[in-house]
Amino acid sequence: MTSVHAYVARSATEPLVPGTVERREVGPKDVRIDIRWAGVCHSDIHTVRGDWGPQPYPLTVGHEIAGVVAEVGSEVTRYRAGDRVGVGCMVGSCGKCAHCQAGDEQYCVEGMIATYAGTDRDGTVTQGGYSTGVVVDEDFVLRIPDAIPFEKAAPLLCAGITTYSPLKRWGAGPGRKVAIVGMGGLGHLAVKFAHAMGAEVTVLSRTLGKREDGLRLGADHYHATSDPETFQALAGRFDLILNTVSAPIDVDAFLGLLAVDGALVNVGAPGEPLDLHVMSLIGGRRSYAGSMIGGIAETQEMLDYCAGHGIAPEVEIIAADQINQAWDRVLASDVRYRFVIDTTTLAA
Amino acid sequence: MTSVHAYVARSATEPLVPGTVERREVGPKDVRIDIRWAGVCHSDIHTVRGDWGPQPYPLTVGHEIAGVVAEVGSEVTRYRAGDRVGVGCMVGSCGKCAHCQAGDEQYCVEGMIATYAGTDRDGTVTQGGYSTGVVVDEDFVLRIPDAIPFEKAAPLLCAGITTYSPLKRWGAGPGRKVAIVGMGGLGHLAVKFAHAMGAEVTVLSRTLGKREDGLRLGADHYHATSDPETFQALAGRFDLILNTVSAPIDVDAFLGLLAVDGALVNVGAPGEPLDLHVMSLIGGRRSYAGSMIGGIAETQEMLDYCAGHGIAPEVEIIAADQINQAWDRVLASDVRYRFVIDTTTLAA
Repeated sequence: MTSVHAYVARSATEPLVPGTVERREVGPKDVRIDIRWAGVCHSDIHTVRGDWGPQPYPLTVGHEIAGVVAEVGSEVTRYRAGDRVGVGCMVGSCGKCAHCQAGDEQYCVEGMIATYAGTDRDGTVTQGGYSTGVVVDEDFVLRIPDAIPFEKAAPLLCAGITTYSPLKRWGAGPGRKVAIVGMGGLGHLAVKFAHAMGAEVTVLSRTLGKREDGLRLGADHYHATSDPETFQALAGRFDLILNTVSAPIDVDAFLGLLAVDGALVNVGAPGEPLDLHVMSLIGGRRSYAGSMIGGIAETQEMLDYCAGHGIAPEVEIIAADQINQAWDRVLASDVRYRFVIDTTTLAA
Repeated sequence: MTSVHAYVARSATEPLVPGTVERREVGPKDVRIDIRWAGVCHSDIHTVRGDWGPQPYPLTVGHEIAGVVAEVGSEVTRYRAGDRVGVGCMVGSCGKCAHCQAGDEQYCVEGMIATYAGTDRDGTVTQGGYSTGVVVDEDFVLRIPDAIPFEKAAPLLCAGITTYSPLKRWGAGPGRKVAIVGMGGLGHLAVKFAHAMGAEVTVLSRTLGKREDGLRLGADHYHATSDPETFQALAGRFDLILNTVSAPIDVDAFLGLLAVDGALVNVGAPGEPLDLHVMSLIGGRRSYAGSMIGGIAETQEMLDYCAGHGIAPEVEIIAADQINQAWDRVLASDVRYRFVIDTTTLAA
């Protein structure tokens, strides 16, 4: 076991504090990574705060990890020391079920092993990326292309794949009208992806506060959902609406913005149930769907796509001792557009 | 104007009574049909009872119509006197919008003209098939293939297309596990279609009361939704669930029966909103969708498919004076599986 520096949650209510977590010895298939950058995802906060159920404390979160390979196991073939690599929301799965075989490890029938607060193969609780090092099975390690600025790579591992995967699956592309709900960490990347894929992109944000940014990042149109007029003016407009907001929405109102055969796809998951009238679906052969991150191969594809299309998140670099303040700002939607922890400051 | 015999609703609360409705003169593009058989759809009852909003009384309902062409207008090219024809849920649409052009007249941007209780081009209220004759634009007239027994053809025009269209669109076929929720007028036809398309078919009915019928009609499995065990035993099983029941369902419970990428498609529309947890969608990239009848070309395709595959509904023929009793039995789910009115009895 090796001890690494980390920021640690001792409970659902206390601020994170500096500490350490233990990492396993490097096994034959393992890659030991010196973490260099760690993205701050809203899920980190939801998890620690207990919004999604009780958690195993002490807990270190973070599932947007970018680092450098420090050591590889004897059977590792794809990585070697010095490689720039990433780790996202999962660090393991059964590898044998139909979904794993199809490259959908996130839907593994035995359940994927989450990067933090999950139960690892050895029975220990997984600990995440707000730390200086991690040991991960090479099958769950991604290669970060040289063209992606290192300090911007981490958020792609969750926010990136979470938006890229449904945009691709539901056919964002030329001739398609795509709306992105929310201009946060996920939303601003979704705008870049949908634009790069060739779709006509509209941002639906609560206010027009980030309109200039949205247009700069590739949106063709920008509307405020706080204005009821928006829902009349855009009725029946979109082929695809990607909802990146995890707060509850008026599902019927958003379904009303879909064209015939359109789909509203949620990647955020409010804890409370939502209401919808079935007629909102039937009246236009519409779908309400959900999507969760993406498989490992698709995550690599997304990283390569970013490299090829010059896509990276807009980030704000923070030091470790700014984490609690950063969380407050995430909760207040006051970040443009993703916090990334400079993990060299964890050892200070 | 020509007067035809009909059964008429005078209000939302009174029984239907014998009467007449007026039909327009045959225009250049019109087909005058002597109605021979009229199916009884649950929608007829919902409409008359005001479940879907206030209605224009006196009203004659019925949108499952099978008859014989009596006369055609000067510009009609596709039909001639003596042809066996059908009329379904719509008798007109704008013909110009993208949906009409794509053969999805049911989603016409100006709104399809419903076969009854709709507003016709001349401003009059459309009157339905519980009558001895109707005049319809040839573009909304279907040809009934000889291989379909005449007295069984009418229910295909609504119950048939409503189930055929989504089964085909969502890919019921070999290697696919399809569940049909409800063994009523729609459900029993859905079982026949899904079986003919090559899917592995499971019926999910409230009880096992119609199990023998379900298996005879083509189901491979039959389970009772009143048994909570069903939802555990079949978790993650189906690629497609077609819900033909218009009463509210526990959406999360049914979504839990879907495999990854599975779709739950409603063709029934309860008036009240339904609850669902978004995680039920996200956890398996699932969809909740709706579908409404089908376009005219697809309806003809469905009729031809029925002829080619020996598919027809199981019907119970009734005389006109049994209509009110039949409605009570529909509401009690006491019909195997569709009432069809012998319209020769309307003139008596």
